[in-house]
Order: sequence, then structure tokens, then C-alpha cells
Amino acid sequence: MNKQKLTIIGIGHVGSYVLSDIMKLGLFSEIALIDSNENISKGEALDQLHANPFTFMPNTKVFSGTYQDCADSDLVIVSAGASIVPSEEEKMPDRALLAENSAKIIREIMANIVAHTNNAVLIFITNPVDTIVHIAENEFDYPAGKIFGTGTMLDTARLKRILADKYNIDPKSITAYMMGEHGMTAFPVLSRANIQGFKMSEWKDLFESTEIDQVSIKNQVVQAAYDVFNGKGWTNAGIAQAVTTLVKAVMLDERSVYPVSTTLRGQYGYNGNVTLSMPCIIGRNGIEKQLEIILDEEEEKMLRESAAYIQNIMSSVGAGIKSIS
Amino acid sequence: MNKQKLTIIGIGHVGSYVLSDIMKLGLFSEIALIDSNENISKGEALDQLHANPFTFMPNTKVFSGTYQDCADSDLVIVSAGASIVPSEEEKMPDRALLAENSAKIIREIMANIVAHTNNAVLIFITNPVDTIVHIAENEFDYPAGKIFGTGTMLDTARLKRILADKYNIDPKSITAYMMGEHGMTAFPVLSRANIQGFKMSEWKDLFESTEIDQVSIKNQVVQAAYDVFNGKGWTNAGIAQAVTTLVKAVMLDERSVYPVSTTLRGQYGYNGNVTLSMPCIIGRNGIEKQLEIILDEEEEKMLRESAAYIQNIMSSVGAGIKSIS
Amino acid sequence: MNKQKLTIIGIGHVGSYVLSDIMKLGLFSEIALIDSNENISKGEALDQLHANPFTFMPNTKVFSGTYQDCADSDLVIVSAGASIVPSEEEKMPDRALLAENSAKIIREIMANIVAHTNNAVLIFITNPVDTIVHIAENEFDYPAGKIFGTGTMLDTARLKRILADKYNIDPKSITAYMMGEHGMTAFPVLSRANIQGFKMSEWKDLFESTEIDQVSIKNQVVQAAYDVFNGKGWTNAGIAQAVTTLVKAVMLDERSVYPVSTTLRGQYGYNGNVTLSMPCIIGRNGIEKQLEIILDEEEEKMLRESAAYIQNIMSSVGAGIKSIS
Amino acid sequence: MNKQKLTIIGIGHVGSYVLSDIMKLGLFSEIALIDSNENISKGEALDQLHANPFTFMPNTKVFSGTYQDCADSDLVIVSAGASIVPSEEEKMPDRALLAENSAKIIREIMANIVAHTNNAVLIFITNPVDTIVHIAENEFDYPAGKIFGTGTMLDTARLKRILADKYNIDPKSITAYMMGEHGMTAFPVLSRANIQGFKMSEWKDLFESTEIDQVSIKNQVVQAAYDVFNGKGWTNAGIAQAVTTLVKAVMLDERSVYPVSTTLRGQYGYNGNVTLSMPCIIGRNGIEKQLEIILDEEEEKMLRESAAYIQNIMSSVGAGIKSIS
Repeated sequence: MNKQKLTIIGIGHVGSYVLSDIMKLGLFSEIALIDSNENISKGEALDQLHANPFTFMPNTKVFSGTYQDCADSDLVIVSAGASIVPSEEEKMPDRALLAENSAKIIREIMANIVAHTNNAVLIFITNPVDTIVHIAENEFDYPAGKIFGTGTMLDTARLKRILADKYNIDPKSITAYMMGEHGMTAFPVLSRANIQGFKMSEWKDLFESTEIDQVSIKNQVVQAAYDVFNGKGWTNAGIAQAVTTLVKAVMLDERSVYPVSTTLRGQYGYNGNVTLSMPCIIGRNGIEKQLEIILDEEEEKMLRESAAYIQNIMSSVGAGIKSIS
Repeated sequence: MNKQKLTIIGIGHVGSYVLSDIMKLGLFSEIALIDSNENISKGEALDQLHANPFTFMPNTKVFSGTYQDCADSDLVIVSAGASIVPSEEEKMPDRALLAENSAKIIREIMANIVAHTNNAVLIFITNPVDTIVHIAENEFDYPAGKIFGTGTMLDTARLKRILADKYNIDPKSITAYMMGEHGMTAFPVLSRANIQGFKMSEWKDLFESTEIDQVSIKNQVVQAAYDVFNGKGWTNAGIAQAVTTLVKAVMLDERSVYPVSTTLRGQYGYNGNVTLSMPCIIGRNGIEKQLEIILDEEEEKMLRESAAYIQNIMSSVGAGIKSIS
Repeated sequence: MNKQKLTIIGIGHVGSYVLSDIMKLGLFSEIALIDSNENISKGEALDQLHANPFTFMPNTKVFSGTYQDCADSDLVIVSAGASIVPSEEEKMPDRALLAENSAKIIREIMANIVAHTNNAVLIFITNPVDTIVHIAENEFDYPAGKIFGTGTMLDTARLKRILADKYNIDPKSITAYMMGEHGMTAFPVLSRANIQGFKMSEWKDLFESTEIDQVSIKNQVVQAAYDVFNGKGWTNAGIAQAVTTLVKAVMLDERSVYPVSTTLRGQYGYNGNVTLSMPCIIGRNGIEKQLEIILDEEEEKMLRESAAYIQNIMSSVGAGIKSIS
Repeated sequence: MNKQKLTIIGIGHVGSYVLSDIMKLGLFSEIALIDSNENISKGEALDQLHANPFTFMPNTKVFSGTYQDCADSDLVIVSAGASIVPSEEEKMPDRALLAENSAKIIREIMANIVAHTNNAVLIFITNPVDTIVHIAENEFDYPAGKIFGTGTMLDTARLKRILADKYNIDPKSITAYMMGEHGMTAFPVLSRANIQGFKMSEWKDLFESTEIDQVSIKNQVVQAAYDVFNGKGWTNAGIAQAVTTLVKAVMLDERSVYPVSTTLRGQYGYNGNVTLSMPCIIGRNGIEKQLEIILDEEEEKMLRESAAYIQNIMSSVGAGIKSIS
């Protein structure tokens, strides 16, 4: 009998929160946890098993597993990777600097995954996520679309939060997103932003407020990441809900449109040579369709800058060259 | 217009998880976070605010607040307190050893709370929770029943998990609980345990399994705490769901029966001189009623040992003597 | 101690479903049911009370109440009104024809409500909802904004469903709404419609499909209502979720933007002389702000036709003339 | 790629509510509706599709299907059957009288189901449910345990509600259930009833109330059904949540213990010759295990009376004789 099964690889601050959030969906009957330190996956599984006996919780079987568990998993979430340590300047290190360590780890993980399945949808959180997705999607034989990264889902939530706070409305009523790199070169697609159809040019009057500072909005989004990081020491609540939302879209085949990290296949003039976030339809097969949106001149420029930045990191770790042979 | 409001004091590993779990209830319109390090409460609030723009999340206003926020809060959760650091023997230190530091902190926090409200229900998580509740309930003028601690809610979940795993059933189908101290001297009330009416003496045959080892079950529950702690470095998933369950019972006035930490008022021969966990009806006024259950001889003995252990800690920090005057 | 309390007036097919859906929110500790036939409100309350003992349900107190219950209610939902009976032509009768009976009923209900509260947010479902809201909002002394109707929430859901089905995507990814009357003259604001920023003119190519038939889309939405009605005999699942969504926005003070029925106060040249659906910010005070969106020429024409149609019905029942004196 | 799929057969008052409640689980990506009147299944599907575009709803594909949909369904719920019409005495007719019509319908439905699957878990609601389950379980080649009925799940909820109201506590804190027939001969297993371990004999003092009237409690449960029926004209909220709870237990493989209708296989001296409700472990394979609980003398007597009553109905419709050949 078929059970809905999830595997989570990498059980740090992020993986733990992802597990906790997904438990509340009541969507899986089994969740396997894998960590390079088995003590951690065992401890995390046990802690969550102590949450399940409470009144409103589903009795999901959470356990410390192995890559063998990928074989019959519907979904695999990868949050493993090199740690982010705040530097002396109290700044979160650029995600790009993590690339080398993460690339090594992800190549090992992917080798282990593909040894057991080419059927599960794989969602990557590990940073620098665009480079990581590029490696996973292009260095291994895995069905197109079944691999993607959380990408600018979180940057998008931060953008919406900034706009929502400015105009004192529900961020869910805002249609807007960030594209490009998940990180410092992410950019807002303000030419398409709207609040239930109201265009950016109308917001000032509509809400009797001031105009959006378009020049600084991108920096505010990046700054929000630092503010969380410098405040609590890591970020996990936002990213965990980003993943949870994608998991629900996949498992229920919602075909929702979200910006996720995916290798471009002809869009914006790139073909297999860069991976970044763009709007995609997310369903039971992962990315069901990439939706190329026409950008304005300024946004197009930022896209190219972001792509170049990602390519630079990709290049530094040889991403995309089939290394498994 | 009246809003449902929550304040959480102490935003560490536990407070963060508590916040995240409670967000999923969709029950509060405002949640204030207070931490002695304001950077942490600000970072945590911001991180959660980045989770709220996602599709299925309520737009709850989470923010770094002050004790002034207690004034119009329906509920206040206190998870502040001295850190638990694993000792060299890789054992979680006895919760009692934390008493001195925690007592000092909680007296300051209570003084701050009562300066703004005597109306909110106060739920304490801070360890050693029984001593902490004793201080809060007995050293300050606060309405009876509106103060209680998570107590053996978590120990109970661990007990149910152990039984559920042994017989391969849903822990929610088990009626059983731990009483006494939240910690090493907690004891299971096995004389009353049942699985949908099946008594312990029937389980062996019912599930074609072996008998419960009554002597060791108490130790297994305590060991479970260590196993989580030594595995992931802290425990938060289980305790967060314990709190969440109590919060729902209070806010929806469910009048559910749960074992929580409360000062005894005549039960088992104690009157105001010890605080420990016993079954209580939890509703909109906090503890609506304490339910004294008749224990068997062995359980009664363990209750007295546990009470004595707690009283020893209480005594060491002068708990119960009105120190604020 | 303050409890979150809801009163539902009118417990037919719609009221019953509204109750059931709202129970799943776990947001109220008390729900009072009022029906002109007390047997029905008693039976419905009891049936729902038989749903609450199950594992995952909150123990909300549901009961057959009286108008006295409005006094301490946070919210009152009114779904009472004349029955809709399918005509011989197997067509749902025009909602306008219900006006006379409904107007009489709603004037009685409002008189009863205002005798006990002017604080609760009042949400009207009763058809013809625009005329009904006009009566409730303008014939009684009740704080501005605290009264509104579900209006084109449901027509909007039908519009999104039609678009979503055409392009095989999640309707939640679509930004679009109907304005004007809830009923046959409702019109889609296609000039502002977008799918995550993609404009209507781009959809055909984007989804490799055909263009939206703008002329017929309005009729398709109306037809959808008939299709449900003629199929199952009434409509309740859609409207119940419309109400539930608004209830959550109010109780959690989400400040979400939804199209609801409200008396215009200067928008589109109307001032107190028509009530119809337009985008509004919904929060703890009901309508926090009406958001006047600039329509294109064709939409503006449809707005005026819809307004005239509503005014005609309003006039036929003398809506807006203070009849209570 | 495997999707979680449900088929519901019979879309009347009960089927409609079942659908609505299950939608809120967010557990299925496809739900097929089958009704002998295809207009009804189409109308119901469309109405629910109009609920799904709202903010917090999953985009589940609900549609009017055929028996072919059973082929890849994980679960099939059967609520089809003869209508219950209130008699002149304003009493709900004894469920037994429905037997003949329902038996005919269920034999047709089962023939259609087994033509497409022997893998899905089948949950029956149709009354008289015990006889119906006996037919489905014993007249067709279908794997043992994969067929069961809601049985006394609802009677149990009514019992808990009566006890909960008497003592003003959460019914979820009560361990108690009804066994036997779903209907007039159902009986409470009070010898095993407890409130978090407190036995019935202790309740009076514990809650400072009066004793339970054991003689009348069974009649009160039966009366509760009539009260709902005579009040609102049918019962659906309670039974819908009963089904929903079972669906969750199956799909998440919770292995929860609930009283459901199943053919006895050696318990209480019956072997294949009666179907009634007894406690069972419910998991991914349906009934994972039947749990025979030892009854006291009076309960045993009521069991035999209830079994005899059911056997009489079974006999009247020739239940259990393989009629399909």
C-alpha cells in the first residue's frame, strides 16, 4: 500500500524547522531524517516524536533514516551544507563563499540519492542555492523539472513584508516577487507588482502614503536577511514556510505559480548555462512549466548582473560539468 | 475592538519553536516577543514576519515588545531562564541546578508582569518549572489558577510514545500520564493507564507482545529527554507542542484535562507547600479545577519522593516566601 | 474573561455549512445559532456538538441562542432570508425578486441586533445581498465599516476558477475579481487581472492556449451559479468558504484586500445611494478602507449598469430610508 | 507519479458534508464524486471548486467521476443509499427498515467497485451500516480489513458529548465508546469508561455532580440522533467528522483505536455471522487489528441483543450469501 513519504537531508536549524512546519500539514505518514551526524537526526526525530502524542497532532512516523529511504519517498528536501558563521563585522557572509564546501557535499548527496531514486521531487535549500541546484540538475541523470531550489521564495516574502508594512496591508494581498539569485543580487520585478490589480504608481495615493523607493527596495530585502541573522543568529522560520508551501503545492498537485530556482532553458537568452529564480508552475512533477516574464530595461539589466554573479560562482566550483562518470 | 493577543517572554530555542507552532493555530492577531537581548526578539519577530506572507499563513502581527504588552494580552508564555549546558559526562544537568539563576530571573519577570496585568493566563516553561511556578503563584498577588506550568505535559508525551512504540499504536489512543516533578522524579500513574479502556494487565495478550517493565518505565521517560538533548543539543519540538496544546485549551475554553504544574491546595496532604504536576481542567481561566486522583501505594510513595525533591529545590531558593514588598 | 464569540443568524443550507467551515478554524470558543425556527438551530447545534468530540476538533461551545448573544459577540453572520426556489424553467430566480421578503426579514433582524450591540462586525450573506447591506448599513445607527456583505467574493471565486481551469493553474495564483452586484450584473475587472504579474494579453502565449473570451466571461460566471444550483439544488460550499475567509481576516486583523459589498461614499460618483462590491481592506474593524480602482471604459459602463440595477431593487423596497423611528 | 486520490459515492446531505470536511484536511490531490444522479455530483463538485480559490484552501481537483476512478483511489467512501424520511410521528425511522433498498444499492456499488480495484480502503456510511458492511465484506472478494463501516463512531461521539456536558469538560478528555449496532441497540461500554483514568464511580465526587444514570444513558444516545434529525431534518455534521477522522487515520497510517463496524472473526463467540462495531486499530490497510475487549455481564447481554437484532436484519436481506455469481 502506497504511503506518502518524505526524506529530509540535513537537520540543522533549518531542517529542524522544516520538519516541524511540515508536521503541521498532516500530509505524510513517514518522514525520514538524514544527517551526516546520525546523533542529530536521531535526536531530532525523537524530539518530534514527543510532539506527536499531543491532542491535535497526526501520528506521523518520524525516524533517522538512510539514503535507502529515498527509494520510496515522494519528496526529498535537501538542507544540508556548510554552516554559515557570522563574520567579525557581524555580517552574514556572502552565500557565494559557501559554494566550494556546499558543492562538495551536494555532489555526494546527489550521488547517494540517484543511487536509490529518479522519481522523487527534490527541493534544495542549501546555499548558494542557485549553484547547488545547477549541480544537482545538470551533473546527474534526473528527470527534468523534478529538481528545483527554494531560490527567491524567501526574498519574495521579504519584499512582500516590506511593502505590506509600508502600506499596512496583508502581504498575501500583494502580487510581487524577486527574481535572480537567492542573495545579494536578487531583484524585485516591480514592473509587474500590484496590490489586487492596483499598480505601483497608484499605491501612494491609494494608501495616502509615500512612494516606494525603487532604488533601495532591493537593498532593503537583502538587509532584512542580515537583520534576522544578526538578531537571532540564523534564519529558519521564513525559509521553513517557503519549503512547506512548495511541498504542499507538489503533494496536492496545486499547480501554483511561485519563483523558484531552476536552470534556464532558453529564457532570457540563457540555455543550460545559468540557474536562477523565475516564476514556475509547481505541481506533482515539480516544475511543471517555467513562465518567462518580460522584464523592463532596468530589471533586465539586474537579471544579467545577477546571472553573471551566479555564473561566476558556478564556474568557481565547476558546476554543470558532469563529474560523475 | 478586542484582539486576541499573546506575549512570549524568552526567545531561545524553545521560545522560537513555541512561536512557530502557535502561528499555525491562527488564533492570535498580535504576538509580542520579549527577550533580555532585544536583538534576539527583533530578529525572531522579523524571521517569523517573513514566514507570514506565504499562501496559507495568517497575517499575524509579530513584534519585539515590552512588558507593557502584557497589559492587553490574553496569554503570557514564559520560557526565559538560565541556559542548560551539557556537562562533561554528556548528561543533561539536573534541572534543579538551574534553580538559583532561574528563580532570580522569574522574580524579575513576574514583577514586570504584575505591574501591567493580573488578568492574563500565565504559562511557565522555564526550568525547574515546578519551583518556578511556585514562586510565580505564591510570591505575587495574582488570581488563583491563572498561573501554571507545562510540568509533566512533555514527560507524559514521552510516556505515551514509549507505550505507543512498544505496541505499535497511535499515542493519542493511550490514556496515561506522568505526575510529580517535571524531571528525574516524575512518575507514571500506571494504575490508571489504559488504551481505550484496555487495562495495562491486558496489553500483553491484546497486542501479542511482552509486558510493560513497570520498574524501568520511569527511567525510560527520563532517558528519552537525555536522548533528545544529547542528539540535537536541546529539546524544543516536544515542549513547543505541549505549550501549543495548552494555549488552544485556554483560548477556546476547551476545559480539557491535562497534567500541569500547580501548587497543591489540600491534595495528597499538601497545602501551599509544594508545586507539582497533577491532572487539571484547563479552560479560559487557566486551571479551572485540580483533579486529585487516588494513587496506588507505590505511586503515592513516588509522589512523596518527588514532592520532597521539589521542596528541597524550592527551599534552596526560598520559593514561596513573598519577597516582593 | 474575554472569549471569542460568534453568532450566526439563519441556519439553512448556507448557515449550516458556514458553521461547519468556521469550526475548522478553531478560532471561537462560543458560537450561538439563531433561526426563526428554533428547532432548526437546536438540531444544528446538536449535530455540530456531535462533531466536536472527534480527535482533531476543538471543543467549541455551539448552542441555540437568542439576540442577547449578539451583545458579547465579536462577529455576527446573517444568512437568514427568503428561500430561493428554482423556477419552472429550471433557472435560479433572479436574486432581486427575493428583495421584498428579505428586506422585511433583515429589518427585523437588524432591529434585534442593534438592541444588543453596536460593536460586533456584521457580515451579511442574505440575498439580494447588496440591497440587504444597504438597508443594514443605512437605516440603522451602526458604526461605519462594521457592516458589509459577502458580495462578489463568490462571483470572484467563480471567475478565478474559470480562468484557472482554462490555463490549468492554481486559482490562488490569479489576481482578479468581480465588482458590482452579487448576481447577474456582476462584472469582471479584467483590465487589472493578472497571473503573478502576467497580464491578460500575455496569457494566450504563456500557456499556449486560446484567448479569454471577454464578452462571455461575465456570463460564464453567472452560469456557474446556475450550474451548481440546478445540480445540487442549492449553493453552499463556495459561499461558506467566502464567509470563512472574511471571518479569519476580521478576527486576526489581517487587513487583506477582498471585494465585498459596501455602500459607496464618493467612489465612482456615488455617495450613499448605492451599495455594491468593490475592493476593501478587511480587518478587525470590518472594512478598514474602501479601495477605489480606476476602471476602463467598458468596465465603468458595466459598473453603472450594475449600480442602476441594484438601485432599482433598493428603490422597490425603500432601502436606505430610515424606517426605524 | 502517484497522487493521493479519494472517491466518494453518494452525494446527498452526508456526502456533501464529508467532501467539505475532507477538503480541509489538505490530504488529497484528486477527489472523484459519484452519484446515481450525475447532475448532483456535477453540481457538488462545482460548488466545492468554487470554495477552493479562497486564500487558505488547497487547490484539490474535485470532479464528477465514474467507477473507473476507484482504480487508482487510495480510499473510497460510500454514503449512497435509500433516503431516510421522517415518519408521521416525527421520528426517524429505524435504520433497519432501510435495509432492503440499501442492500440492493450496495450490491450494485460493490460490483462496480471490485470491477476496478481490490486495493483501496472502503469506508461505508450507508445505513443500516452493519448489514451493509456485512454484505460488502462477505459477498465479494476483497482483502480482509480493507472494508469497514463508521459504525458506532457517531454514537460514541454522542455518548462523549452527553458525559462531557454533564460534567462540563472536553469530550476529548473522555475515554468511552459505544459498541454493537449503529442505531437503537448500540450500548455504552461503561465498565471501561474513564476520564483521564478516573473511573465512572469516581466522577460524582470528582465533579461535585450527580451519578450517571446507566440505565438511561443508552437511550439518551439514541435520543440525541432523533433530536438532531427532528431539528434540522437530517444529520451530517457529526457523521462527516467521524469519516474525516477515520480517513486521516488511514491515510497517515496513524494506527488509532476507534470503534468501527466489522465482521467478527471469533470474537465474543461469533465467527463471520455478524457485523457490528468493536474497537479496532485503524491504519493504512484499514482495520489493522480487531481488539476484543472483555465486557461485564450486562454489557455482554446487550452485545448479544444487538448482534441478534443485526442478524435479523442481515437475514432479511440475505446478507453474507455470495449473491454475485
